Amino acid sequence: MTQEQTDMPPVQRWAVKIEYKGTDFVGWQKQKSGLSVQSLIEEAAYYLADKTIVPSIVAGRTDSGVHALGQAAHLDFPKDKHFTRYSIREGLGYFLKPHPVVIVDAAPVDLTWNARFSALWRSYRYIILNRPARAALLDDYVWHIKSSLDIENMQQAANYLIGHHDFTSFRAAACQALSPIKTLDQLSIHRRKNIIIIKTKARSFLHHQVRNMVGTLVKVGQDRWTPEDVRHILNAKDRCKAGPTAPASGLYLKSVGYDPDPFNQT
Amino acid sequence: MTQEQTDMPPVQRWAVKIEYKGTDFVGWQKQKSGLSVQSLIEEAAYYLADKTIVPSIVAGRTDSGVHALGQAAHLDFPKDKHFTRYSIREGLGYFLKPHPVVIVDAAPVDLTWNARFSALWRSYRYIILNRPARAALLDDYVWHIKSSLDIENMQQAANYLIGHHDFTSFRAAACQALSPIKTLDQLSIHRRKNIIIIKTKARSFLHHQVRNMVGTLVKVGQDRWTPEDVRHILNAKDRCKAGPTAPASGLYLKSVGYDPDPFNQT
Repeated sequence: MTQEQTDMPPVQRWAVKIEYKGTDFVGWQKQKSGLSVQSLIEEAAYYLADKTIVPSIVAGRTDSGVHALGQAAHLDFPKDKHFTRYSIREGLGYFLKPHPVVIVDAAPVDLTWNARFSALWRSYRYIILNRPARAALLDDYVWHIKSSLDIENMQQAANYLIGHHDFTSFRAAACQALSPIKTLDQLSIHRRKNIIIIKTKARSFLHHQVRNMVGTLVKVGQDRWTPEDVRHILNAKDRCKAGPTAPASGLYLKSVGYDPDPFNQT
Repeated sequence: MTQEQTDMPPVQRWAVKIEYKGTDFVGWQKQKSGLSVQSLIEEAAYYLADKTIVPSIVAGRTDSGVHALGQAAHLDFPKDKHFTRYSIREGLGYFLKPHPVVIVDAAPVDLTWNARFSALWRSYRYIILNRPARAALLDDYVWHIKSSLDIENMQQAANYLIGHHDFTSFRAAACQALSPIKTLDQLSIHRRKNIIIIKTKARSFLHHQVRNMVGTLVKVGQDRWTPEDVRHILNAKDRCKAGPTAPASGLYLKSVGYDPDPFNQT
């Protein structure tokens, strides 16, 4: 990190908290195939910094269609620009218009702080609309499942997944993680009328892990599998045994945890 | 009503509960200027009834951009079609695709039942996103207000509006109601983090009454007016004294009350 300071012009690192609607993006990461959140953020930062290239590092690389309520990233701006929390938030927000990407908060951080590696946990929400009629208002924001789901059985199945496990059965083929072993801190299922919210939290997740767990839990909610089947699926360490990948539209990166939280400093 | 039965081929009246996203419609009512929810519903009913014209009557004629979670209407279908709750809901839903209009419930009712005149009350929700950053996810679904609103003052002001009053100050020029005197049963303001929800309920509302009340309450929340100012505005019986009409995007027709509720019969 000190090398960065000596080889490059002095920079001020900014942590930013980002909200976006993932529907029309190829995902967080820059890709040639279409518009990404990262490319929009870096382009906004480029213009805000008077056409200086501002690279970004993100806490959670979301896939196409996945939304974020509290994505975190850091951006290294030239130090001589003297930005403030207000000017970073409003300035980036200005250049991000009219795209469905907004900066909800910004905070200066040390160069030792890293949006990805300093993160202690990531939390996600998955939202299911569980009723016969499709969604009129929330079409891009939920997974619509017609048949009534048994959330008590889903919670029983979820309990087998909580803890320190080899999650190979829930890992996408394209996953680049070094190890399939993760510690799942939370996987809880809540119903409010015809909305089912699945809350999950871990230090980190494998690629597609949340959506694969949700696809599997839904099979249990539909009484096609028992909660005990999910224990066997986990132990099989075989992606073919688990359920389908749930649609991206229902998934939200809720928040990323840091200690101390750069956004809660005064 | 018995005349209807003798002059016309026998019909079965169906009550339907409708959810829609109002953004891209001219409103509920059929208009030459664009697509309306009513025209879509009647067209779907026309095809479902093998190309028989099926007129509709609605509980609350919403304006362009206003959403509905539980709009109620009735439709008179030819009796010989032998529809069921399931076939009305799914059949209309099929012909309504891909528009953001869905039938969430359907129930057979007597010809004496009228979606508009049998309604005992209408309830609305108004949603404000109250934070500096604009909405990335909920752009079409809220009124975004940057400056922090004082909801305790807003509630104090709202309390002056609850009850039996002449609401001329909150009535649109185009309002066709016979009398400006209405009884407002509920007007409550709730905050959850940066979302403010205004709940209101009355037997019926004047045209733009909810949005004009919200526009006025926001002035109080911004400390431009005191709660007592709202009492004077009400007493002035002058539309020019009240605040601006709040945007349609934040308004939802939540539900319509009947006794008995046709949708809760088994």
